[in-house]
Amino acid sequence: MQSDLVEEQRQPLLIVISGPSGVGKDSVLQRMKERNLPFHFVVTATTRPQRPGEADGVDYYFVTHDEFAEMIEKGELLEYAIVYNDYKGIPKGQVRQALASGRDVMMRIDVQGAETIRELCPDALLIFLSTRTEGELVSRLEARKTETPEGLKLRIATARQELKRVGMFDYYVINPDHRLDETVDIILSIINAEHHRTQPRQVTL
Amino acid sequence: MQSDLVEEQRQPLLIVISGPSGVGKDSVLQRMKERNLPFHFVVTATTRPQRPGEADGVDYYFVTHDEFAEMIEKGELLEYAIVYNDYKGIPKGQVRQALASGRDVMMRIDVQGAETIRELCPDALLIFLSTRTEGELVSRLEARKTETPEGLKLRIATARQELKRVGMFDYYVINPDHRLDETVDIILSIINAEHHRTQPRQVTL
Repeated sequence: MQSDLVEEQRQPLLIVISGPSGVGKDSVLQRMKERNLPFHFVVTATTRPQRPGEADGVDYYFVTHDEFAEMIEKGELLEYAIVYNDYKGIPKGQVRQALASGRDVMMRIDVQGAETIRELCPDALLIFLSTRTEGELVSRLEARKTETPEGLKLRIATARQELKRVGMFDYYVINPDHRLDETVDIILSIINAEHHRTQPRQVTL
Repeated sequence: MQSDLVEEQRQPLLIVISGPSGVGKDSVLQRMKERNLPFHFVVTATTRPQRPGEADGVDYYFVTHDEFAEMIEKGELLEYAIVYNDYKGIPKGQVRQALASGRDVMMRIDVQGAETIRELCPDALLIFLSTRTEGELVSRLEARKTETPEGLKLRIATARQELKRVGMFDYYVINPDHRLDETVDIILSIINAEHHRTQPRQVTL
């Protein structure tokens, strides 16, 4: 939109959806893709095994530990972390290209990774996703059936610590069971609002 | 909404819709009322003559200059200003009561008044409404047919000065002709987003 009175802010945003394991980060991003929202969805590189239904290059770039090590050495990752013995990283070039094209960049990342993004880019838009109750979180992790009892315990303990970091985020959104579209709508409201700030975020990487 | 993990922020907001004369502040608030949005809409006291279609106690409290002077003396006004030879003021008690009841308070006010609200309440949510172009603003003022040529000239000159104050506001929203519902939807997005901030605004008066 053009205006000779007030300059409308169309600077692209770097949007980070984060929160404890099990809150529904992947589901939220999946629903956004289904709704054909005009974001660049970052494809994360990971060494974790491909789950049924996941496609390489779409859900993740599935790479070997050797390939991942090479990306680290070449400085090709914006951020990377070991999450439950698996590596995950955000390819830097991909994010820069998308921002340069003027598109809002959308990524999901664990809480530790979000902290790193905040340090690298203080004006990133950080959204903390949470279940309504701890019970809901436990139910979702159990329903996945991908966790050993020890793994589950570890994830819950980690979640409790991560919830204390919510103040580092800009916004938090509760993602209740069976109301994914409402959650997406709230996130879209936040993004819409951010594009109407008089003091726009300055995203530089 | 209740959560034992993250406290959802339901602190009421003090929302100020401002902008130059002619940008459509009254129309935007009128449309919000028609849509039965759950805000407390502040009723401003004014000494200006009632226009056709306006109802006392609904659109404004129409008061005499003597009555207005008494409200000033008794300290019953949050803010007041002389606007084109007429007095307008915000009854303080009304705003406090609405906030105490937990409702978001919505008011429209001229740019000068918005500056006063910012001083009184730094965490007020200030939205600057603008037309897309200066030509649109002039057309709207002319269409009102309530302006003398001198009055129109004065309003346009004032608008030019007011546009320079946009940085004092939190958000700006373009209100194009014939797209009132879109404008209202953007404002609702902003309010929705604000209720999901991790650092909520502290509204005290």
